[in-house]
Amino acid sequence: MEKEKLDIIRHSTSHILAYAVKELFKDVKFGIGPTIDDGFYYDFDLNGETFSLEDLDKIEQKMKEIIKKNLEFNKKEVKIEEAENKLKDQPYKLELVEDLKNQGEKKVSFYQVGDFEDLCRGPHVSSTKELGNFKLLRVAGAYWKGSEKNAMLQRIYGTAFGTKEELAEYLKMLQEAEKRDHNKLGKELGLFITSDLIGQGLPLLTPKGSIIKQILQRWIEDEEKKRGYQLTMTPYLAKSDLYKVSGHWDHYRDGMFVLDASGEEMALRPMTCPFQFQIYKAEKRSYRDLPIRYNETSTLFRNESSGEMHGLIRLRQFTLSEGHLICRMDQLEEEFEGVLDLIQYILKTLGLSDFWYRFSKWDPKNNKGKYIDNPKAWEQSEKTLKKILDKNKMKYEEAEGEAAFYGPKLDIQMKNVFGKEDTIITVQIDFALPEKFDMAYIDEKGQEVRPIVIHRSSIGAYERTMALLIERYAGAFPTWLSPNQVKIIPVSEKFNDYGIKVKEIFEKNNIRVELDDSNESLGKRIRNAEKEKTPYILVVGEKEKSEDTVSVRKRGVGDLGAKKAGEFVKEILEEIKNRE
Amino acid sequence: MEKEKLDIIRHSTSHILAYAVKELFKDVKFGIGPTIDDGFYYDFDLNGETFSLEDLDKIEQKMKEIIKKNLEFNKKEVKIEEAENKLKDQPYKLELVEDLKNQGEKKVSFYQVGDFEDLCRGPHVSSTKELGNFKLLRVAGAYWKGSEKNAMLQRIYGTAFGTKEELAEYLKMLQEAEKRDHNKLGKELGLFITSDLIGQGLPLLTPKGSIIKQILQRWIEDEEKKRGYQLTMTPYLAKSDLYKVSGHWDHYRDGMFVLDASGEEMALRPMTCPFQFQIYKAEKRSYRDLPIRYNETSTLFRNESSGEMHGLIRLRQFTLSEGHLICRMDQLEEEFEGVLDLIQYILKTLGLSDFWYRFSKWDPKNNKGKYIDNPKAWEQSEKTLKKILDKNKMKYEEAEGEAAFYGPKLDIQMKNVFGKEDTIITVQIDFALPEKFDMAYIDEKGQEVRPIVIHRSSIGAYERTMALLIERYAGAFPTWLSPNQVKIIPVSEKFNDYGIKVKEIFEKNNIRVELDDSNESLGKRIRNAEKEKTPYILVVGEKEKSEDTVSVRKRGVGDLGAKKAGEFVKEILEEIKNRE
Repeated sequence: MEKEKLDIIRHSTSHILAYAVKELFKDVKFGIGPTIDDGFYYDFDLNGETFSLEDLDKIEQKMKEIIKKNLEFNKKEVKIEEAENKLKDQPYKLELVEDLKNQGEKKVSFYQVGDFEDLCRGPHVSSTKELGNFKLLRVAGAYWKGSEKNAMLQRIYGTAFGTKEELAEYLKMLQEAEKRDHNKLGKELGLFITSDLIGQGLPLLTPKGSIIKQILQRWIEDEEKKRGYQLTMTPYLAKSDLYKVSGHWDHYRDGMFVLDASGEEMALRPMTCPFQFQIYKAEKRSYRDLPIRYNETSTLFRNESSGEMHGLIRLRQFTLSEGHLICRMDQLEEEFEGVLDLIQYILKTLGLSDFWYRFSKWDPKNNKGKYIDNPKAWEQSEKTLKKILDKNKMKYEEAEGEAAFYGPKLDIQMKNVFGKEDTIITVQIDFALPEKFDMAYIDEKGQEVRPIVIHRSSIGAYERTMALLIERYAGAFPTWLSPNQVKIIPVSEKFNDYGIKVKEIFEKNNIRVELDDSNESLGKRIRNAEKEKTPYILVVGEKEKSEDTVSVRKRGVGDLGAKKAGEFVKEILEEIKNRE
Repeated sequence: MEKEKLDIIRHSTSHILAYAVKELFKDVKFGIGPTIDDGFYYDFDLNGETFSLEDLDKIEQKMKEIIKKNLEFNKKEVKIEEAENKLKDQPYKLELVEDLKNQGEKKVSFYQVGDFEDLCRGPHVSSTKELGNFKLLRVAGAYWKGSEKNAMLQRIYGTAFGTKEELAEYLKMLQEAEKRDHNKLGKELGLFITSDLIGQGLPLLTPKGSIIKQILQRWIEDEEKKRGYQLTMTPYLAKSDLYKVSGHWDHYRDGMFVLDASGEEMALRPMTCPFQFQIYKAEKRSYRDLPIRYNETSTLFRNESSGEMHGLIRLRQFTLSEGHLICRMDQLEEEFEGVLDLIQYILKTLGLSDFWYRFSKWDPKNNKGKYIDNPKAWEQSEKTLKKILDKNKMKYEEAEGEAAFYGPKLDIQMKNVFGKEDTIITVQIDFALPEKFDMAYIDEKGQEVRPIVIHRSSIGAYERTMALLIERYAGAFPTWLSPNQVKIIPVSEKFNDYGIKVKEIFEKNNIRVELDDSNESLGKRIRNAEKEKTPYILVVGEKEKSEDTVSVRKRGVGDLGAKKAGEFVKEILEEIKNRE
């Protein structure tokens, strides 16, 4: 079904939701009820009360009753004063009308269905006959107009489709996605925990989660070194002076953690650029020294408000594989291509290949203060970017006027398991900060010239990437990333000694191995290892001991038969080396 | 010369210093002039003026003149009221007299030498005949009584010895040490920089410095993993709630960076323990699970005041190899021994073997609130520690009553190049925090029992260890730690191609290599490489190219002759593997 028609169904269903709530909760006050990407919601003020799950069931029941009546949707336009009168007991709706009035509107429209009338632009279906394939999904708190200063309302989320089959398919997808939700699965697999004493947006990586991050971090640092990057390690806080030069103090202060350091005003850093620029500036640079490619496994901090934080995704502290390439204009194309090649290699290796690009450009007609005033640099760099994208036949969408102040940028976009689009990596060209930090190199003629900067990540934020990987693999990580690679299970206590001997062989080869010699039955221990999604289960008993072998079960494949331990070590080391 | 006699000489020389300053600066006000480990100082108030280096020369000259007069030191006791009268124009001295009066003193003593009289307990030499082997070293600002709330005085440092030879030897040592001073040498070698925009106590590691830290960090994490440690990665800030439980909020708040996180009170962490404890507490633990050994490459923050920060040593942010072993009392001995074995291995590998131990114990007679009230745990754990130290014939000093609140501790002590004693690693037994965080394990009988915690580092703070290494090796790091391991120098432009070919062989083997194909003369390029303290210089020319070899010069050894590149790669890889 086309998006427009689907939106009409969903929006009409949200009216039915409000209708049903009004029938069941007499004194309810209404907020707004728009459609969203995958459904709709409606906000209600229940006078401090909250909806229970039972309430949702009742409301759904009532909605079905209403829909069955085959009621018509009717639009009527009224004068704004009449609307004010109609809505005198509905403070939120009244506020919306006042807003429209202030914008110069003289009339507003209402839609009526059955006994229920709602301020609305429409359009709607003509009759509730067209509705019915819907489901209420969850309830959450939401501030009126999204501001913490306003009242907290109750938001009911739901979805609706044109057919029963589409709804069923969507709900199945949702169920599947929820099983993979990294926040749930990551905790079940013991990869991270959260702590009320520590606070929101500050997950703790357990030993299992830390192994994954350590492997990724070492891989990225080594790969970037091979590609000519130089690692830096710079401090996580600085005097406000630094952020005043960079402009963050004026434009981003609310998102920063500010602190008092024995009388000096300091802040935790939201990015690494000005720190790496200090290293660049510590020496005279010549055109022959460029490009300089700095990378850092960089801890960053964001003063997120509580409601926005989630799992490993929206955090107060996270670790970005952050880099800055400082180059001459004539090196921009090659450097930018090098960055894209690195990103593509990394995402491919991680099995995340279903991404596309969004190319954000400036708007030359509307550049008053919104973009750095350097038309030549804009034109040249956008041309370079477009050339790279076209030459390499890369899948991209153009976003006119969406560039940052500093220069054009390229976002790497991906959908998560819930189908929601996310930017996972950004590559940004910058002509502004080199100016602000007075960065220079000496050209062939001995003149000082400003370099260009490319801000880039390669694997994005480690925590977010881990979340993506948990969801993508539903916790069944490829061997090289698995916290445990091998589980040894002796068939009985008699063979624990042989199990220990085998375990030592793997340990000596730096393979992550566990021995399950607990008192559980053999079947139970195998099922446990399967639940933990261990890539290889090795069962050892009489036959294996006498023949000096292990019986190998591979996750997702099954029995591979008996192998000499040394032979299997070689195979698994090869797999790890190839990042499989 | 015995310490007591030396102190008398130094203290007498500080009187002569004050005498000379009074002759040259009429209105000077005097602070105090005690001896210190390696000499003496005297504090002066010059009415806001500061001493120049020329002033120091003049003062030294004047001191020599005074000493030549063979003046006697004479003591006289006076009533405290008389002293007050004598010192009415000397506000600092007057304050000292008032302090003595408040302590109940009725009389104070003065020492007179020539025209100069000073409030002093003595003792002194009998005549300036015994003085003369002295040197003024430097001048620095110092707050009166060490408090930032008081006036800033001018402190002149000097030293004195019994003989000319001893003085000369000390000054030579000092000169040598200054050349090695990590703050100077580390910047000269391009290992780190500082930035006024970023602030004090926040050094930035350049690519060269970052390589050293990365190598150390990977080595420590791998070695600890081999020894059964489990890596964690926990956040750098937490709600004040966490620090209230740990007790840091009450006892250490001034040393912490406190910040407001959208209305929540949070702070940057000064230690990792309570974070790792959250991971311990996230699961039920059985006696069979213990010991659990957590480690973390942990960033910590200290709100140091500006005057206290220095180079890579006193910092606002640093990285500690921090670990916590959670164990049963019957495991304490083995675990503590394991920690010491690890520390000894690490310090030995780093070439830092001239350390000793300080064993800090409680004072059972004075335990009112100063120590956690658990005599049995104190006795048992101190007995265990002493047993380990004696059994292993370890060099240690006992410090009665010097234990922390939590339990006994063992410090690893070392002298820096200036001869100053420093604690570089602390191992701390703790029975208090497990109590505060309600940590438990289930014993054989199904009962909840409190575990014991060992707080430990293994390499200490990475930054401080790097400072020690810079000073110890005067920048000539062993090959495995050298930012550059090999420098290739073609004898002329004609052989640059061959140089590049050789460079690629080393790069392929992950050896850190640079090619110097600049326009400088061969001699100059070799001298540059020597100044950078590169372990190996490979000169390549006609002969090397035709024979497919490199001519090897080893730092500190000299010419090793021509070798096949592949053969030399093997040798250097073996050296790196052995951490040489």
